[in-house]
Amino acid sequence: LDKLIAALARLPGVGRRSAERMAMKLVAGPGDLRDDLSAALQAVKEQVTACQRCGCATARTQNPCRLCVGPGRDDAVLCVVEDPSDIPLIERSGGFTGRYHALMGRIAPMKGEGPADLRLAALRSRIEQEGVREIILALATDVEGDATAAYICETLKGREVKITRLASGLPSGSAVRYSDPITLARALKGRQEA
Amino acid sequence: LDKLIAALARLPGVGRRSAERMAMKLVAGPGDLRDDLSAALQAVKEQVTACQRCGCATARTQNPCRLCVGPGRDDAVLCVVEDPSDIPLIERSGGFTGRYHALMGRIAPMKGEGPADLRLAALRSRIEQEGVREIILALATDVEGDATAAYICETLKGREVKITRLASGLPSGSAVRYSDPITLARALKGRQEA
Repeated sequence: LDKLIAALARLPGVGRRSAERMAMKLVAGPGDLRDDLSAALQAVKEQVTACQRCGCATARTQNPCRLCVGPGRDDAVLCVVEDPSDIPLIERSGGFTGRYHALMGRIAPMKGEGPADLRLAALRSRIEQEGVREIILALATDVEGDATAAYICETLKGREVKITRLASGLPSGSAVRYSDPITLARALKGRQEA
Repeated sequence: LDKLIAALARLPGVGRRSAERMAMKLVAGPGDLRDDLSAALQAVKEQVTACQRCGCATARTQNPCRLCVGPGRDDAVLCVVEDPSDIPLIERSGGFTGRYHALMGRIAPMKGEGPADLRLAALRSRIEQEGVREIILALATDVEGDATAAYICETLKGREVKITRLASGLPSGSAVRYSDPITLARALKGRQEA
């Protein structure tokens, strides 16, 4: 049971206490939940893997994944995300039709995560091999996201690739009175022709 | 008492129930709160007014206000806000050093607020008289803010003034996983060189 709790607590967004409640449910609750979860984990292990190109989840029989090799997408634009779970969110926005690349983390010295933990070598070789002309950094707008963006710009310096970053400003449905000073300063700096 | 409750309920962000609690506090609570509020209202009536130029609050002895006539600011850039209470927030961001213009509302047909309720004639005459070269629309990023921005662009068509709008995108400290699809689509569209 301790091992189950420890494993559950390693899932993102799950703390010790939640893990204990989940473990109790799996042990003392209806047996079919435990069996379903167990079967799903086994099936995932057998059938699903990370795409060798972008890092997103894909079927073992489809690697690289559909987003990487599917038609109707622009090979020249690469959207760089921190985590593969960001990819479906950007897809849902309908605002992007290029390819993706998941870094599998970001530079966070306080957590012991440095550039070596990121898929940067893979990014560099993709830029060369796939004829990428623009990479869009879809990184967080916090200190660690800024550090990661700065590092990537530095590491790609001299290459013939345009590096852009998602606009920073007021989210949709917001207004001046709901915004913090840093967001307002960035929204002013990045203002665009109306 | 009913009149007091009704007056309090007209303040922004105050509902009927809050107004009742405030009124009770003013009537049954310590008398100095009532007297202080009363004296402050009287003093405001005597000494404070809306700036004839930007619409922000200012002393009667200082009209136009300090932001409108103070030195060290750029007369050529005008920041258009919906409400004068937005002005101190933009000032605090440190990202703007031009002049301000409060519309005193926005186009909201559902609430019966149309262009005639806005300080648009004053905006037009200021653009002509003050040599304004750029106006920054610091409007909400919702349907009514978009409608107001579109109307202002239309009404200023043909004039030699650049019209920009605050960047729409990820607020500071945010990330892809915290963003809605519309915000992501706008952040992608408005992406900037890193």
